[in-house]
Amino acid sequence: MRIIVYGVGGIGGTVAAASALSGQEVIGIARGAQLEAIRNNGLLLRTPERASRAHFPCVEDPTEITFRSDDAILLSMKTQDTLPALERLRAAGVAEQPIFCVQNGVSNERFALRRFPEVHGVTVMMPATLTAPGEVCAFSTPRHGIFDIGRYPSCRNSHDDALAQALEAANIAAFVMSDVMQSKYGKLILNLRNILEAALGLEADYGRFDALLRNEAETAFKAAGIVWRDFGGSDPRREQLMRSRPIEGVHRSGGSTTQSLARGSGSIETDYLNGEIVLLGRLHGVPTPANAYFVDLGARMIREKLKPGSIPIAQVEAELKAAGVVDRF
Amino acid sequence: MRIIVYGVGGIGGTVAAASALSGQEVIGIARGAQLEAIRNNGLLLRTPERASRAHFPCVEDPTEITFRSDDAILLSMKTQDTLPALERLRAAGVAEQPIFCVQNGVSNERFALRRFPEVHGVTVMMPATLTAPGEVCAFSTPRHGIFDIGRYPSCRNSHDDALAQALEAANIAAFVMSDVMQSKYGKLILNLRNILEAALGLEADYGRFDALLRNEAETAFKAAGIVWRDFGGSDPRREQLMRSRPIEGVHRSGGSTTQSLARGSGSIETDYLNGEIVLLGRLHGVPTPANAYFVDLGARMIREKLKPGSIPIAQVEAELKAAGVVDRF
Repeated sequence: MRIIVYGVGGIGGTVAAASALSGQEVIGIARGAQLEAIRNNGLLLRTPERASRAHFPCVEDPTEITFRSDDAILLSMKTQDTLPALERLRAAGVAEQPIFCVQNGVSNERFALRRFPEVHGVTVMMPATLTAPGEVCAFSTPRHGIFDIGRYPSCRNSHDDALAQALEAANIAAFVMSDVMQSKYGKLILNLRNILEAALGLEADYGRFDALLRNEAETAFKAAGIVWRDFGGSDPRREQLMRSRPIEGVHRSGGSTTQSLARGSGSIETDYLNGEIVLLGRLHGVPTPANAYFVDLGARMIREKLKPGSIPIAQVEAELKAAGVVDRF
Repeated sequence: MRIIVYGVGGIGGTVAAASALSGQEVIGIARGAQLEAIRNNGLLLRTPERASRAHFPCVEDPTEITFRSDDAILLSMKTQDTLPALERLRAAGVAEQPIFCVQNGVSNERFALRRFPEVHGVTVMMPATLTAPGEVCAFSTPRHGIFDIGRYPSCRNSHDDALAQALEAANIAAFVMSDVMQSKYGKLILNLRNILEAALGLEADYGRFDALLRNEAETAFKAAGIVWRDFGGSDPRREQLMRSRPIEGVHRSGGSTTQSLARGSGSIETDYLNGEIVLLGRLHGVPTPANAYFVDLGARMIREKLKPGSIPIAQVEAELKAAGVVDRF
């Protein structure tokens, strides 16, 4: 199997570097400074224990790759960038190869299945960040992270087993399951707080907002008949496989939403995290005003180029009260 | 009510011009030569009976409009252009206003509902073409077309009634219903042949392919539990309200897919017409090889910049046989 990593950011970069370092065949698809850095010097993977430089070919566009039938294509861009990426894969002649959505949210699989027959979901639990062009930091030990893997919309097949084997060799714990979307919906609930962290800052006391968001999500899931695996902080695999440790000289910059705002990337994944709850609520008659408020806040922060952590907690409280979302905190 | 028509092509142009001509307040959102022509000379609406020039303001981007609470926003771009359009509407401050998806396919409503609370579907039966910048031809008489209108995902409300009243004043027959998506799924079945017409030409004998596509669609709808209104050629409203007549000197250039290929627009709506059947089939375990074949053919025609009608019928037959879709014709 050859691993094509489309989107070499924090997650994709860790997967690509760790796979290459374990002797596997990898091709990255990246842009701009990241592409240039990897081409010139490879990709430095820093972990709590060591720093290792991985070398693998990297291209700007899928059409530069001669795809093979044994390729596994890992999507690791954010959801708002998935549709154009799928278009480029089709233009490059990809057809029957398995597409793995190594992404947050639950929309990518559906986007991919419209265009490709062999689509798989991957739940990503991996604290990793792109710290500079050509450098990713993966903070977890003893494994770089935990991935749940399975076919979309359900079942599992040999492609899942092959990827799991490759990931295990790359020090990423991989669990193949026949209902991976239940795992991804569980992860979605955890990701609802990404915008809280991004708007209010890593240190803010946002627990009361998180409870509001989560409560709406659980009500919407129930109304929609969606079964999810609740594996928050209590997933026993975390303590065994995925303990976060500091890396010397590296400041943890927060989750993927925070990173997008910090980079001023011009788009935000909140539409496909909290926005998924809003959509489900509207489809099934469940009010989701708190999630809707934070979707709007995310869009506003991108438009006004606000920095992560720049929204005062008192402002959010006042706006949620004014909008009638809560009476009091 | 003020009518904002986003995408002033054949359909949007006919709606905008006919509404403006009936004395209603209209703003268009258009690009390039179409925007320039409308700004300079208005939009000429040609019908079998007459030609009338409509004048209304037209902008390039929603942010140029100061939106009002009584605006109704009509989306009339193709599905592949809907997501960026919704982004621009949000950037322009649109929030609670009704969004009407005056579009083929059944995906736009879901895209819109993720971002806006008040989304409505509109089934478009209207033979109309953008024949030149600043000129649309609407071939139907006595009405310009028939629109079914309702709230998404179901029900109907006062926004539907208000739009229906405006459309009726503009000589477009409008029917408000509480299950408009049943109507849109029925229209989707008719649109499966758009790619046949586009690939093989208006005059080709493609009935046997159409039957294949339609049969797959009906099986997929049943498996997915989708109820649709079968209103093909037998809808009695057609004979009464929507009879196609020639317009002197105008060559009917075919449906929207054909028009996209003829313009070399670089994208095609087939992913959201036949591709919807393919997606449903993959989600619900129904093989849809004929629709998948024509989705791929559409993508290939766009990539290779092939002209409408340039695919020989014998080639399609041979490829469908080679792919095992049919044994023989």
